[in-house]
Amino acid sequence: MEEADAIVGYKTYVELVKDIIKDKEVVASGMRKEKARAEEAVKLALQGKCVAVISSGDPGVYGMAGITLEVADGKVPVEMVPGVTAATAAAASLGAPLVHDFAVISLSDLLTPWNKIMSRLEASAMADMVIVLYNPRSKGRPDHIKTAREIILWHRDPQTPVGLVRSARRGKEEVTITTLKEMLNYEIDMLTTVIIGNSETMVKNGKMITPRGYDV
Amino acid sequence: MEEADAIVGYKTYVELVKDIIKDKEVVASGMRKEKARAEEAVKLALQGKCVAVISSGDPGVYGMAGITLEVADGKVPVEMVPGVTAATAAAASLGAPLVHDFAVISLSDLLTPWNKIMSRLEASAMADMVIVLYNPRSKGRPDHIKTAREIILWHRDPQTPVGLVRSARRGKEEVTITTLKEMLNYEIDMLTTVIIGNSETMVKNGKMITPRGYDV
Repeated sequence: MEEADAIVGYKTYVELVKDIIKDKEVVASGMRKEKARAEEAVKLALQGKCVAVISSGDPGVYGMAGITLEVADGKVPVEMVPGVTAATAAAASLGAPLVHDFAVISLSDLLTPWNKIMSRLEASAMADMVIVLYNPRSKGRPDHIKTAREIILWHRDPQTPVGLVRSARRGKEEVTITTLKEMLNYEIDMLTTVIIGNSETMVKNGKMITPRGYDV
Repeated sequence: MEEADAIVGYKTYVELVKDIIKDKEVVASGMRKEKARAEEAVKLALQGKCVAVISSGDPGVYGMAGITLEVADGKVPVEMVPGVTAATAAAASLGAPLVHDFAVISLSDLLTPWNKIMSRLEASAMADMVIVLYNPRSKGRPDHIKTAREIILWHRDPQTPVGLVRSARRGKEEVTITTLKEMLNYEIDMLTTVIIGNSETMVKNGKMITPRGYDV
């Protein structure tokens, strides 16, 4: 970002880095404008500018990396800079829920058929993988998280630990450890990352741990 | 690490940070000594020292976070610091393979029954998730990667793009983009992260992209 001539991003994320970018050209836009943002970035790059397209977390996980590469289409070089994605940021705040195999699934069906998302939820639940849910709930789809929980309950005990982390590592973080049975009694929104344990995940001293099989 | 009195870690990782830690007490040990390392760290912490237990990538993903919390057992406070895990580091070097739902699976059966690993591979393949393989091959298990590939081929086209990244973002990185059909013709070892695309993953301008569904 410091080396860039221009910064392109979702306005909430641009706001998060305002101290770094004060003297730069900034193109901030609203949600669901991903393709327009990528096009704007490529347009500026074709003018010879060094452009930073910013995402929160890791741009390669449900972020701008894909659409930017697609729109750039080989016309300008694109370099991806990995970051800390919400799954591992939330995991660090919960304890160690991801030290074993896990699935990362977004409940947003804006760009993915809901039946495909459901089949992924069931496959992951059946195979006893820890499950990380991104975009668990928005105003437009308040009930997907209920359906997801039901599907997971077909294969997993109601007492399975569930971690809810809101605004993971972004300041004002809120961390809750609950269970599959109780999880809907807590606030879950677009800023929440949900981590559902596997059959061995436990809560110990207030931390969520998926044991790796060491003889402790 | 800079604030710590003592550094505890696998010797290869200690070597990677030697410039930071030169004036610290260092406890470096070999592979498969995870529990002993955690015990050593807790012992030092109980003496009042600030101890940094280091892992490569993110300590919460197949790293030291779990065993350290288990061994600490509430006797000393443990803070997890998230990092960039191999999955997203490798993804950044390949392009944007992880902008859609994915599973992270280790092929190491040292601490996990192999049949459980196989069932996770099949579930993820069946549900059309991108699959990231950690620990794909070691001297002790040279053939697991062959079996994993066969299981995935039950549900996925032989032309599915596969990315192989050795020493992701650690210097001397090696990046290969191939297919499920051809992947075994390339060197795959303990330092390699393998990313297998879903049914929509494509290779464009030398980059591996899993489209998110935007109309490009």
